[in-house]
Amino acid sequence: MRVGVIGCGAVGSLFAAHLAQLDDVEVWAYDLHTEHVQAINEHGLKLSGVGDLVGRLRATTDAAKLPSCDFGIVAVKSMHTGTAMAATAHAFEDGAVCSVQNGIGNEELVAEHVGRVMRGTTFPAGHVIAPGHVGWDTAGDTWIGPFEPSPARMDEVEELAEALTRSGMNTAALEDARGAQWTKAIFNAATNPVGALTGLAHGEICDFEPTRRLISGLTDECKAVAAALGIALDHDPEEMVDHAARVAHDHKASMTQDVLAHRQTEIDFLNGAIVRHGEESGVPTPLNRAIWALVKALEDSWT
Amino acid sequence: MRVGVIGCGAVGSLFAAHLAQLDDVEVWAYDLHTEHVQAINEHGLKLSGVGDLVGRLRATTDAAKLPSCDFGIVAVKSMHTGTAMAATAHAFEDGAVCSVQNGIGNEELVAEHVGRVMRGTTFPAGHVIAPGHVGWDTAGDTWIGPFEPSPARMDEVEELAEALTRSGMNTAALEDARGAQWTKAIFNAATNPVGALTGLAHGEICDFEPTRRLISGLTDECKAVAAALGIALDHDPEEMVDHAARVAHDHKASMTQDVLAHRQTEIDFLNGAIVRHGEESGVPTPLNRAIWALVKALEDSWT
Repeated sequence: MRVGVIGCGAVGSLFAAHLAQLDDVEVWAYDLHTEHVQAINEHGLKLSGVGDLVGRLRATTDAAKLPSCDFGIVAVKSMHTGTAMAATAHAFEDGAVCSVQNGIGNEELVAEHVGRVMRGTTFPAGHVIAPGHVGWDTAGDTWIGPFEPSPARMDEVEELAEALTRSGMNTAALEDARGAQWTKAIFNAATNPVGALTGLAHGEICDFEPTRRLISGLTDECKAVAAALGIALDHDPEEMVDHAARVAHDHKASMTQDVLAHRQTEIDFLNGAIVRHGEESGVPTPLNRAIWALVKALEDSWT
Repeated sequence: MRVGVIGCGAVGSLFAAHLAQLDDVEVWAYDLHTEHVQAINEHGLKLSGVGDLVGRLRATTDAAKLPSCDFGIVAVKSMHTGTAMAATAHAFEDGAVCSVQNGIGNEELVAEHVGRVMRGTTFPAGHVIAPGHVGWDTAGDTWIGPFEPSPARMDEVEELAEALTRSGMNTAALEDARGAQWTKAIFNAATNPVGALTGLAHGEICDFEPTRRLISGLTDECKAVAAALGIALDHDPEEMVDHAARVAHDHKASMTQDVLAHRQTEIDFLNGAIVRHGEESGVPTPLNRAIWALVKALEDSWT
């Protein structure tokens, strides 16, 4: 089996380095950071933290060099999905591609370029320490399933899940992966921008009653949109909020880090997607729209 | 007539320097900035900008030195109203005190310390250039009237309005000044925190459709609260929003400047007051509550 990992940042690296442990899987990675790609090709891709391992794989900044793959795993930031897939689609003409990105709407963009697509949601997280070296900060499971309008075959979903699980990334193959995806997306939409707009860590926005109440208001709108779409959530996102406040109290969401660094955020794939789906299904989402507007304006203020 | 100006920052200085032009008015000012007070006592209080003038008055940082006054004009930042009035109330045992502060809820705090109170709303604005020297940036009118639960007499309202108008600060004496006050407070509540959370100028948050729409959402909630309280607004605050976008496009609201400088804002007297009055009158204010929560959390992040 040959797997192409599209976007070999923190999350992409967790998948690439794990899969590269398997003798029967050949791993390629496409990434635009030249030093990172060079380091991976020279010394392998190193993970440290939750576990320590080195994956041997082939990395390239040149999409044309990607060979034909059986599977793709997309892990670029959401706003780069379209560009990355346009560049690499040739490698997946006979393959199936799975998004493991944050938020809602990435599979739609992947499906504009390839025929068989999977939804994915992943909990493991990390951060780039140095070129070729990624910190593995959080363990956790992954859920994948066919993307309904352009589905990968279920046997493909199961084959990829089996390989990932065997490599050390526990992955469930689901007929309907929307519940897992929306549960995490709602968690992110309800908490990340509140942290980003205030500069506070996750636990701090949960400890402060007015922002905790705002999180619940955002969550309620998101749950109403999910219900209107017929999506059964895996868990109540409120439980994830409280759980994260206990186990990751001082963690600043990646969106908060994006705002502090004046980088574009994934807000369009979180609250923006909730607003869009709300409009389509007749569910009002005034709080999500307000939060989306504030973060978009904040991004505008840097440019 | 003796007038005590409580808080001689930008707005207080406009009132103090103008009133000091009148031969029949003796002006005192209470302010905690020692250098400003010293400069006023040595060289007078200088205004420049819209008009140039110097007012001769007596300033003090020592509340005990304030003599008995016929009128008080309160111009401290809203969050300092209680402290300032507790310190100076002795000077107004036989006088009437008028708030010319931003927002909603200051008169209630003044009335905890003095018997006869006026509501006031003022449009002139300025900024402190140096000790004893204030820039007069914006001309405009002032509206004053009795504060209903602890009212000043109407003849007192008219007497103060007449003196202010004669001094060059055009002021209307109204039986019901709530409409003027709420119109401006709604304008501030709907726009200032949007600028403060995004770092954008007033015209920028009006040019960007998502934030302009948020401003309308906030305004609609505020108007519903005013209607529930039986307050007839002077104008539609939306018109003020669009007017300000034309004439003061690049102006950053004082709340934006507060946030950039990590100073406490007046949010409790704007969106916080709207939420409080909404709760009391059964009008939902989810957007104002969200905005209030975000600014409060942002303030928390500095401390």
